[in-house]
Amino acid sequence: MADTADQTTRIGLIGPGIMGEPMGRNLIRAGFPLTVYARRPEAARTLAAAGASTAATPAELAAQVDILITMVSDTPDVEAVLLGPHGVTEGGRPGLLVIDMSTISPVATRDMATKLAEKGIRMLDAPVSGGDVGAQNGTLTIMVGGDQADFDFALPVFQAMGQTITLIGDHGAGQVVKACNNLIIAQTVIAVSEAFEMAKAAGVDLGKAREALMGGFAGSRVMEIHARRMIDNNYTPGFKARLHNKDLQIVARTLDAFDLKLHGSRLAIGYMQKLVDQGDGELDSAALARIVQQSAHLR
Amino acid sequence: MADTADQTTRIGLIGPGIMGEPMGRNLIRAGFPLTVYARRPEAARTLAAAGASTAATPAELAAQVDILITMVSDTPDVEAVLLGPHGVTEGGRPGLLVIDMSTISPVATRDMATKLAEKGIRMLDAPVSGGDVGAQNGTLTIMVGGDQADFDFALPVFQAMGQTITLIGDHGAGQVVKACNNLIIAQTVIAVSEAFEMAKAAGVDLGKAREALMGGFAGSRVMEIHARRMIDNNYTPGFKARLHNKDLQIVARTLDAFDLKLHGSRLAIGYMQKLVDQGDGELDSAALARIVQQSAHLR
Repeated sequence: MADTADQTTRIGLIGPGIMGEPMGRNLIRAGFPLTVYARRPEAARTLAAAGASTAATPAELAAQVDILITMVSDTPDVEAVLLGPHGVTEGGRPGLLVIDMSTISPVATRDMATKLAEKGIRMLDAPVSGGDVGAQNGTLTIMVGGDQADFDFALPVFQAMGQTITLIGDHGAGQVVKACNNLIIAQTVIAVSEAFEMAKAAGVDLGKAREALMGGFAGSRVMEIHARRMIDNNYTPGFKARLHNKDLQIVARTLDAFDLKLHGSRLAIGYMQKLVDQGDGELDSAALARIVQQSAHLR
Repeated sequence: MADTADQTTRIGLIGPGIMGEPMGRNLIRAGFPLTVYARRPEAARTLAAAGASTAATPAELAAQVDILITMVSDTPDVEAVLLGPHGVTEGGRPGLLVIDMSTISPVATRDMATKLAEKGIRMLDAPVSGGDVGAQNGTLTIMVGGDQADFDFALPVFQAMGQTITLIGDHGAGQVVKACNNLIIAQTVIAVSEAFEMAKAAGVDLGKAREALMGGFAGSRVMEIHARRMIDNNYTPGFKARLHNKDLQIVARTLDAFDLKLHGSRLAIGYMQKLVDQGDGELDSAALARIVQQSAHLR
């Protein structure tokens, strides 16, 4: 196999969902031969129509490809397709490179990398930021953990899907930085919406406030994107609160594992859970502003 | 007087300090005739050498100018130079425009604007963001509260000192947005440093993490500037914690005035006070990361 993936590198994709499908489409567009596995076979239809082959099980898929990408919902889903019955370890030959692009537990990621290594299967964790729009436009931010040689090999594949592509460190490091990403976003959303509560109470126009704040040190992507949603009270996702909450639960378990007391983070984790608990899980996670608004006026 | 300030518009400046002096220098450079008052006369020397006149009291200064800029430390200082003995109201004729560019209480600002109006003196609040570097380069962000006509009149003066110049709303609105600015920055610093604590605990290189996070929705000016300081453990100011703390105390009183319960904000206000209390007030306020680090490992 070449040092760097090229258009003879066969790619497998498990999980052609709202993110996986446009990512698969960009791989086909870049000229990579693609084979897809979906738990519900009808989910693979659009990519099949675009030129992908399909496989009946993860094991069967793994036997046919050089790189196998997983893009599924949560830690147990990745564990099932990699290590479960008819899973990747049953079909994959030594030398196969698994790239998990789902957002899951950093700790579990390290364990899986070890188990795959026992079968000679290599692994990168490569979670993404940028949402479905980033997936469609091939502009995802990709945060990678694993070996340099595997990263170098996979780089052309990443470049077909993303823009800012960084090897952070060893197995799990990509997931750690994705956890940082989700945590910082949630806290910045709280910071902006709390400031907006103060501005509203003082009778200040939020659109003007945002405009002024954008130019200074309070400027951020959250001020650019999420603050707009707060001002318009329009929480069409975007990134659903339900999924952001799932990611923050991973953060919560990671903080527990390291015995870290991070009070701003715990506040954000609690607020997001509250938002989902009150039935707003399908809204964009900027709706965290609603929990801030409720808390601001509690007696 | 013309509808818009021009090079015949006489400008007064009270407070030629670390911010006021370079702002005054930019006014001279733009061709405005400048007169300066400093509590300690030697503080006016550099601007005098650059061509400014000096006045012996705020009242004397007010009698000579069309626009009078105040750039002093805190609410009581502004009250003293405007309303105190030998203050601006003693010398200023009706039609004088006072522009307070200090960062002070929004509530007190409204009161002062009312008192000045009784003497026919107009007022804008116009606090700035961007620090001494922004003041030197004439790239300050200026957040303005007051009347549209006064804003329009003063615009060429603002343009000599700043870049993003926004009329937010009525008297005090500039100070409200400046309070928002300081609050969001402090909370974003906490968000980033908490995420960094998690990353460190997981053995992840912070430089790499920052690089990856910059490209996504967690990207911010704080990630650009303050995160660099945290990684280098170099808290040369920048914006001193002592001054950021003063500004957050204004926020605290504003939240009290509106009876708002903002938990992320209270955390940030408390952490900044702690940082100053432990003797780190002269450091850049990104040193808030130190309080996060201490809290993270408390038993």
